[in-house]
Formats: sequence, structure tokens, C-alpha cells
Amino acid sequence: MKLGLVGLGKMGMNLGLNMMDHGHQVTAFDVSPEAVKKFQEAGGGGANSLADLVQNLATPRIVWLMVPQGKIVDNLLDELRPLLTKGDIVIEAGNSHYKDSLRRAELLTGEGLHYFDVGTSGGMDGARNGACYMIGGDKQVFETIEPLFRDTAVPNGYLYTGPSGSGHYSKMVHNGIEYGMMAAIGEGFEILEKGPFDYDYEALAKVWSNGSVIRGWLMELTQSAFSKDPKLAGIRGVMHSSGEGKWTVEEALDVQVAAPVIALSLLMRYRSAEDDTFTGKVVAALRNEFGGHAVEKNPS
Amino acid sequence: MKLGLVGLGKMGMNLGLNMMDHGHQVTAFDVSPEAVKKFQEAGGGGANSLADLVQNLATPRIVWLMVPQGKIVDNLLDELRPLLTKGDIVIEAGNSHYKDSLRRAELLTGEGLHYFDVGTSGGMDGARNGACYMIGGDKQVFETIEPLFRDTAVPNGYLYTGPSGSGHYSKMVHNGIEYGMMAAIGEGFEILEKGPFDYDYEALAKVWSNGSVIRGWLMELTQSAFSKDPKLAGIRGVMHSSGEGKWTVEEALDVQVAAPVIALSLLMRYRSAEDDTFTGKVVAALRNEFGGHAVEKNPS
Amino acid sequence: MKLGLVGLGKMGMNLGLNMMDHGHQVTAFDVSPEAVKKFQEAGGGGANSLADLVQNLATPRIVWLMVPQGKIVDNLLDELRPLLTKGDIVIEAGNSHYKDSLRRAELLTGEGLHYFDVGTSGGMDGARNGACYMIGGDKQVFETIEPLFRDTAVPNGYLYTGPSGSGHYSKMVHNGIEYGMMAAIGEGFEILEKGPFDYDYEALAKVWSNGSVIRGWLMELTQSAFSKDPKLAGIRGVMHSSGEGKWTVEEALDVQVAAPVIALSLLMRYRSAEDDTFTGKVVAALRNEFGGHAVEKNPS
Amino acid sequence: MKLGLVGLGKMGMNLGLNMMDHGHQVTAFDVSPEAVKKFQEAGGGGANSLADLVQNLATPRIVWLMVPQGKIVDNLLDELRPLLTKGDIVIEAGNSHYKDSLRRAELLTGEGLHYFDVGTSGGMDGARNGACYMIGGDKQVFETIEPLFRDTAVPNGYLYTGPSGSGHYSKMVHNGIEYGMMAAIGEGFEILEKGPFDYDYEALAKVWSNGSVIRGWLMELTQSAFSKDPKLAGIRGVMHSSGEGKWTVEEALDVQVAAPVIALSLLMRYRSAEDDTFTGKVVAALRNEFGGHAVEKNPS
Repeated sequence: MKLGLVGLGKMGMNLGLNMMDHGHQVTAFDVSPEAVKKFQEAGGGGANSLADLVQNLATPRIVWLMVPQGKIVDNLLDELRPLLTKGDIVIEAGNSHYKDSLRRAELLTGEGLHYFDVGTSGGMDGARNGACYMIGGDKQVFETIEPLFRDTAVPNGYLYTGPSGSGHYSKMVHNGIEYGMMAAIGEGFEILEKGPFDYDYEALAKVWSNGSVIRGWLMELTQSAFSKDPKLAGIRGVMHSSGEGKWTVEEALDVQVAAPVIALSLLMRYRSAEDDTFTGKVVAALRNEFGGHAVEKNPS
Repeated sequence: MKLGLVGLGKMGMNLGLNMMDHGHQVTAFDVSPEAVKKFQEAGGGGANSLADLVQNLATPRIVWLMVPQGKIVDNLLDELRPLLTKGDIVIEAGNSHYKDSLRRAELLTGEGLHYFDVGTSGGMDGARNGACYMIGGDKQVFETIEPLFRDTAVPNGYLYTGPSGSGHYSKMVHNGIEYGMMAAIGEGFEILEKGPFDYDYEALAKVWSNGSVIRGWLMELTQSAFSKDPKLAGIRGVMHSSGEGKWTVEEALDVQVAAPVIALSLLMRYRSAEDDTFTGKVVAALRNEFGGHAVEKNPS
Repeated sequence: MKLGLVGLGKMGMNLGLNMMDHGHQVTAFDVSPEAVKKFQEAGGGGANSLADLVQNLATPRIVWLMVPQGKIVDNLLDELRPLLTKGDIVIEAGNSHYKDSLRRAELLTGEGLHYFDVGTSGGMDGARNGACYMIGGDKQVFETIEPLFRDTAVPNGYLYTGPSGSGHYSKMVHNGIEYGMMAAIGEGFEILEKGPFDYDYEALAKVWSNGSVIRGWLMELTQSAFSKDPKLAGIRGVMHSSGEGKWTVEEALDVQVAAPVIALSLLMRYRSAEDDTFTGKVVAALRNEFGGHAVEKNPS
Repeated sequence: MKLGLVGLGKMGMNLGLNMMDHGHQVTAFDVSPEAVKKFQEAGGGGANSLADLVQNLATPRIVWLMVPQGKIVDNLLDELRPLLTKGDIVIEAGNSHYKDSLRRAELLTGEGLHYFDVGTSGGMDGARNGACYMIGGDKQVFETIEPLFRDTAVPNGYLYTGPSGSGHYSKMVHNGIEYGMMAAIGEGFEILEKGPFDYDYEALAKVWSNGSVIRGWLMELTQSAFSKDPKLAGIRGVMHSSGEGKWTVEEALDVQVAAPVIALSLLMRYRSAEDDTFTGKVVAALRNEFGGHAVEKNPS
């Protein structure tokens, strides 16, 4: 198929190359001309603006957005919409909040455009060699673009999930599960680290990747990480987060689901970003107040 | 190799057949003569007592215990020890507490016997077709029995983890991680179930099993479960537990590790076994006391 | 002082009587004429509409809203604003979200009115006999209405907390703390209930109310609750929630505070409203899948 | 009454003075001769050994132990038992584990001695001016020593809780509740600290101590702490723990109670003692593995 790709970051570049591997004709645009140039050198088409990109496409046009979620998507859509015509298709495959996707789908659909919210999993490696997609939008139109997903996903690695919003909603929950799983793995290794035995973590992650109940890609990645740094001595345990975990917890609150594991995996990420906590100060002060327990002083 | 197998339950039977597939000569004993008979019909050797089983083996004898953890292991060892002679090898591959294994290893080692504590993962399917082992005990003696593990495990699916206790310790932590992962998956699907979209859970678990970050055996099993009952309508959400999760949390407390995800996965299992909670009664009563908020009455 | 009171529910009625005890002249309006009549019988003034209520007041008028949070407040304000004139004062003393209060304060201030967001604690008993107030709004105008708060609060029981929004924000956090405290008390009694001893809970709550570290009003209320029903046998442990706990957790997420205790106290409330969970079904199904562990069947 | 007091630490010294205030004749022993001397200067009796202390008492002797829990109690009892005679009474009022108390009660009762396990709450101030006691042991013998508790407790501040072990069990749970409450308060103030308003925490804790639902001694102590250091700037938020919280969680696990609030209050104490976590390292490494997310490096 012929399509335009907007965004040549870590994910977009890999996806574009992946598409081309499967015979799709991709014209790409990015705010960075260097990225566009790099993509052209790899055999892709380049555009120097959204308008330029759109001009390269025949109707019904397909524009695939692979950019960070948030305002940037809205800005791109505001710029794109006047350039597109009825029946054109926008695929937004970043990590957007499903409520944003619902709003955008309504906006574009109202103008006769088609909008797909696509959750993309599998990391950079998946983008390059076989991704995993959850796709929300119109089912019949989906079938016209299905080859794009089929070709760039691993076998059985894409799913039409239902109406608009359902793609990003399921991706949000996927990431919530991911937060919980990663925390479980982390906690397990911390217990090992504090416990009485001296394990070879790379070897343990490897054996757990082969035949155990907890085998899977995250355990394989754990093995990979330990293969580079056996005790992760070079890494600070600061766990950043980019939104989906928080959205999952907020959604759990809205639909009144007790999701303590996912919630705590998020809260411990926040905790990891702090050197000290006010909670701790208050509790330490209280212990001192009633029991005379010594507090640790801050250096003045 | 030639060995005795004690215990022909769900795991033991499958493991015994697995061993025989790889040419090992297995004589089995179980408290159930029917189980022994079934094993014999499958081509294995049968013993009608521990003494009978030991008599069938040449020194250094290898006896593999595959029985439920706890008192039953101690009782078996009390009966076995007088029947064995110096240099004989006992492999205990159930889900014992590592502190029990340390104690038992000390006892048997003091008598000139060799003791291996082996964590076995992979479920019944793994036992039959390729298990995952974490093995604690003497390294040199381990090498003499290594073929047993290599042959019955999946490729790369066994690891000598270190001295006595280290096998069961790592299996305990493995199961703690498993608790957390399973809870994360469960919570995710509960959010989906309460959320605004109507997903085909089997299809979603399938796509998440192919290319996503959270792919792995547990997600494949999730797909399998939904393939049998699309909304799990026939199942009560009571999550039993058999010990290792609790041990992991207790160990975390002992070594002062903040492991909230694993801890919460366990506490929610306990919660699931209750129809109502005293905590809830107290909080409801308090809300009524200060705010006049209505309580839900129990039918009298 | 002379003021109008809108809302004669559990809190408003008690507060109105409390105000009158201290010599304030209160004209009240409620959608229920019976409530107004009851208030009049207690010596208060009654109005049959907001317009009627406003007419009874001299400028600068003081109107105290004591109604459930949400749309109802906005509707009242929409009706009130045209009736008021510059310099009039609106006190909103319900449990509103602070962001609503910020928005409303901006709206009314823009029209020359004064707006105070007031968190009111102490329950019905406090409303009647001595409440606790956290008050946000203009400091100088606050001083003109300070007698209202001083007279109807317990000694030291009111605080000007700062600009608009700060009253309800601090009340929100107060309630978050309350959720956590109540859960801690509930969990403690549940451990006692499951533990090896047979306690007289009323007596225990009483002794804990006298001299212990955890003494306070909530423990006194615990005693009171047990005095009416020694084992709370008549109460279902369903813990409803009315918003502030959720807002506190959402705020914690927004400002990236690890607040696990408050978060879990909320999640367990949600859990208490469920007979069974999808999380539990998934985990039980998974245990069956890999280990052949029996599931509990739903009656068909 | 006449009694011997063993242990003149923070709690013992205050309790001894409290006893004397109410006319009891106290002979005290401590490993520190200075403490004994100080107690004598305050009007008390002093002993230079346990034997000396016992000799000062008439049968049935009453010996009150006020020492740190653990081995020290067992050692004292081993030394005391041969010095005592049938019918003598030992009161152990420290924070012992109830299982230790059960064991000790059985030991002493078997020798014809009486043993009381007493949970003492109220902190140092309570010890000096009015404590709170939970008392387990023989009910009839308890009545003979009841004046000691009545006189040194606040009004209604002591309770005979039942057979041996029940005193310390209820104190353990009391402390578990205390952990949860303190964490709830701490988390609340941390949200305030990170939130959009600038509160006077001392003033807020004061108003919350007067009329609010969460009023109580802990909130008064919070006010006191902020009165000394308005933002607790001088304190590190390291929350030490001395055992009872851990025991409460372990007990919750044993009796299968979902006590997430108390459990998390404990786990966050452990977290506060760490500068960095292995959990965090693993999660950060995993995010880097699959998504190329940057990790924070440790300075080498």
C-alpha cells in the first residue's frame, strides 16, 4: 500500500522500515530533516511538510501518525484536516489517552474522514521486526488497511478491537498490566538481592525464561539487562513513567475496580523519584513525639 | 539413569513419564497402589513400599521425591534415611519452604547422604514435556545427576543455583513473581470488563501473546482459559494459595524489602476467600456514626 | 449576624440550629417545604425560594450553601448570581471538589461577589454542637464573617486556610486521611476477629480511647458502634464512598505522591461493593490452566 | 502496693515515678546504676541486683518488668524464677510478641508463678501521667493487682483482656493500627506539600485537632511536631520500626486477613530506609530494554 508516515522517532523510523520491508510505499515527514534524510537513504520517500506529504498520496489517502501523545497530535490533526478530503484515513498509532482518541475520532468522522486509534506494543524491536497492534475504528474501513497491520505485525499480532477508542483503551490496560508485571519481577529480584543466597541473576532470568510459569518477553529482557550489568550497579532505580500507568489507575478509580497491584506499581514509581518523603518526615516526627524515638537529622 | 520416584500425583506421574521418554529407568512408589499400577502400565517400574523401592536401586541410589510440601516430606525422610547408605542421593523437587530444605539438607548431609532441593516450575505440562528446575545442593554431586534434569527440562531449563536451600528459595521468589504477574493480568481484564468497550477477551489475550511487551506463558494460558469460557462465567473468583506467595511476603518482611505488588497480590487472594469482611463492617459502622450514612443490613 | 442558609439536610439543619444558638438570624430555604417548616418551628426564618431568601437579607448579603456537591451547587449559583449584588458573600460549605471551587470563585469574583469554599468536618454532631472549618477565600472579607465560624465551631475549630480552593483542598486531604485511619482501625479489628483471642470489642475500643496512642474521635465512635452491636453482626461490610477519597487519590497521582495507604483504603471500599471479581476469576482460571488447581464453580 | 520494678529506661523510669505518685512503694533495679540512683533520688527504692530486689519484697511478690522485648526478657525470667516462690506475680509490660508471652506464661504458670502480659500504650507521657494498659493473664489474680493499673492509667485506661497472650496480642494490633494511622496522616501532609496551596501545617494540624473527624492524639502530636519545625526541614523521613507492625502483618498473613493499609504502612517504612532499590533498577533496566527509555546512571 501507499501511505504517509508522520514521525520518525524511535518507533516511527523502525515501523517505516518494517513497512518498506513488506513492499509498502512510505513517504515520511518529521520535524527533523535529518530523520527524513535518513529515511530516504534507507529507500523511503521524504516530504518536507505535511502538505508535501499529503500531495504525494492518492485518495483515499492513508496517513499514519507515530508521534508522542498529547498536544502534538492535536496540532498535527489541525494542520492535516484541511489538507485531507472525504474518505481519507488517519491512523494514530501512538500512546494516546483513549478519551483523546474518542474526541479526535468524533472530530474527524464529522468531517468525513476515517480515524483509527491504534495501540502499538512490542517496543522498538517490535516496530522493526514485528509489532503488536490493537486497532479501534470503523470495521469496514479497517479491512481496507488491514494489510498494513498484517504485514508489519508478528503472526497473529494485530486485532481489530472495536469502535473508536477501543484500540488505545486496550493498549492503556496492556501497559497497566506491564507496570504490574515489571514491578513483580523487580520485587522478586530485590528479595533475592537481600536474601541469604548469592545468585547469578542472568542465569536465573535465563532459566526462568525457559519452561517456567513466568517465562515471557519481560523475563527475556531481564536476562538481557543482567547480561550487560550483572548487578545493575550502573543504574539508578528511578522508574520514570509516561502516562499509561497513571491512566490505567485513574480508569480503575472511575470504574471502581480494586486494582491494587497496578496502583502500587505506579505509586512505587513515584516513590522512586524522591530522595526523601514528607510522609516519612511526619511519621518519624510522630514517633519522636510519642515515644522519644530518635529521628535522623538532615545535614544543615 | 536408574532412579526411584516417590509420589505419583499430578506432577510426579508426568515427570516419571517424561523421564522414561528419555531412557531413564524409573521405579515409582505412591501411597495409592492404583497410581503405581497406572505407572507400571505406562512401562515404569513399581514398588509397594519405600523399602521395596530402595531395594530396586543400586548404590549410589537416587531417590526423587515429588510430594506435597510439609510434614509428609519429613515423614518420608524419616522412613527413607535408615534405608539409604552413605553416598545415596535424595532429590526433593516439591514446593518446600527453603528453611525446611536447609534443615533437611543438614540432617541428611550429617548422615553422609546428599540432598538436593529442587524448585520445579512449568506446571503439569512442563512436568510432562519439559520442566524448569532450580537446583540447590552440592555442585560436584549435582554433576552426576545433571542428565536427569537436562533430559526432562526444556532446553536451558535447569540451573544449579548454589548451596542447599537456594533451589527452593529461588522457586519461592519465582512464585511470588507469578502471584504478582497473575494479579496484574487479572486486574487488567477486570478494568476491561468494567470499562466502556466490549472486548473479545480470547482474541485480546491472543494478540497480547503475539508481539506485545506482556507476551509470555501466562498470557497464553489466559487465552486458553477464555477460549473455554469467554467471560469466565462459570468460575468463582476465589483465589486459593498454597504457601509460596505467603513465604515470599514473609521473607520480604524479614529482609525488609518493600514488595507491595507481591504483598497485595497475596492479600487480595485472602480477600477473595471472604464473602464479607470485618474491616468493612467497622468502616461502614463508623461512617454511620459520624455522618449518618446508611449501612447495608445483614438479612436476619 | 444575619444570613441566608440554603439546604436543610442532615448537615444544614444542624448548622442552622447551631447558628441560632449563638444569636445569628438565619433565614433558610430548602427544596423541601417540610424542612423549611421544621426549621421555622425551631425559631428560624423560612423562605420559599432563593429570591425570597435573598430579599430577606440586607447588603452585603451572606448566603451559606449547605448542599450536596456537584451540579446542584452550580445550578444554585446560576440562580443566585442574578439575585445578588456586588459585595455580597457566598459561603459554600459542602464537600465540593476544589477545582470546582476554584472555577466558581473565579466566576463569582468576576461579578464582584465574594466566594468562600469551606470544608466542614465533625459530622452531624459537629454541625449541631461545634464544627470544624477550613476556609478558603479573600482574607479581609473573611474577617467580616469570622464570627459565624467562631461561634459555630468548637474552640480553635476553624482556620482561614488561604486563597480560594484551599478550604476544600484541605478538606479533601482531611477525608483522605480519614479513609486511611478508618481502614487501619477496621483492619485491626478484623485481625482481632480472626485471631486466637475472644475480645470484648466495645471494651477494647473504650480502653484505646483512653490514654492510648490511637485515641481520638474515630476510636470513640468505634466504641459507640460496638456498644450497639457487639460484633456488628447486623451490618454488611459494604463501604460506600462519596468522592473525597477518590479525589485525594487522583490528586496524589497528579502531584506524583506515593500515598499507598490512602489509595488502598479507597480500593478496598470498591472491592467491598463486589460479590465477586473478574480479577479473581482470571487468577483462578490461570491456576487451573497451569497447575490443574480446582476452581470454584458458579452455580449455573 | 509494694512492688519491684525492673528496667528504668524511658518507659520504666516514668512509670516508676507515676506509681510512686499514687502511693505505691517501688524498689527498682536496672543494669545502669546511674538510673537506679536517679530513681532513688526521686524517692524510690533501689536494688543492685535482681536478688536484692526480690529480697525487698514480701510474698506474694510483685515484679514488674519494663525492658525491651526479646532475649532480654527471657534472660531476666531465667534469673528471676529461682528467686521467686509459688504465688509470686510477674508483670511483663514491654512490647513482647504474644507468642513469647504465651510460652513464658506457660513456663511460669507451670512453676506456680503468675504471669501477666501487659501492653502499655501512651508513650512516655502516658507512662508518667496516665498510661493505657491491655492486660492478659489470670482474672482472679489480676484483681489483686488491679490497683496498680487503675492508679497509673488514665481514667478508663486499663482493660483485663483475657487469658495470657491477649494483652500483648491486642497491643500488637493497636500498634498495627497506629502504623496505618500515622502513614495516613503522613501521606495527607505529603499531598498538601506537593499540592497547589501553601498551608501553615501547624495551624492545620491544630484545627484538625479540634472538632474534625480525624482529631485525636496523633493529630495533636502532629501539631506539636510542626510547632517545632514548620516544614520538618531538619528531619530525614526515615521511618524506623521496632517490631509490632511487622508482627501485625505476619499475624494478618497467618489468619489470612487482607490488611493492605497496615501492610503498606510497614512496607513504606522499609522503603524509607533505602536510598535506592533493586526493584527500581530492574524496572528501569527493563524500560530501557524494550523501549529505549533512558536510565539514570549511577555515578561511578
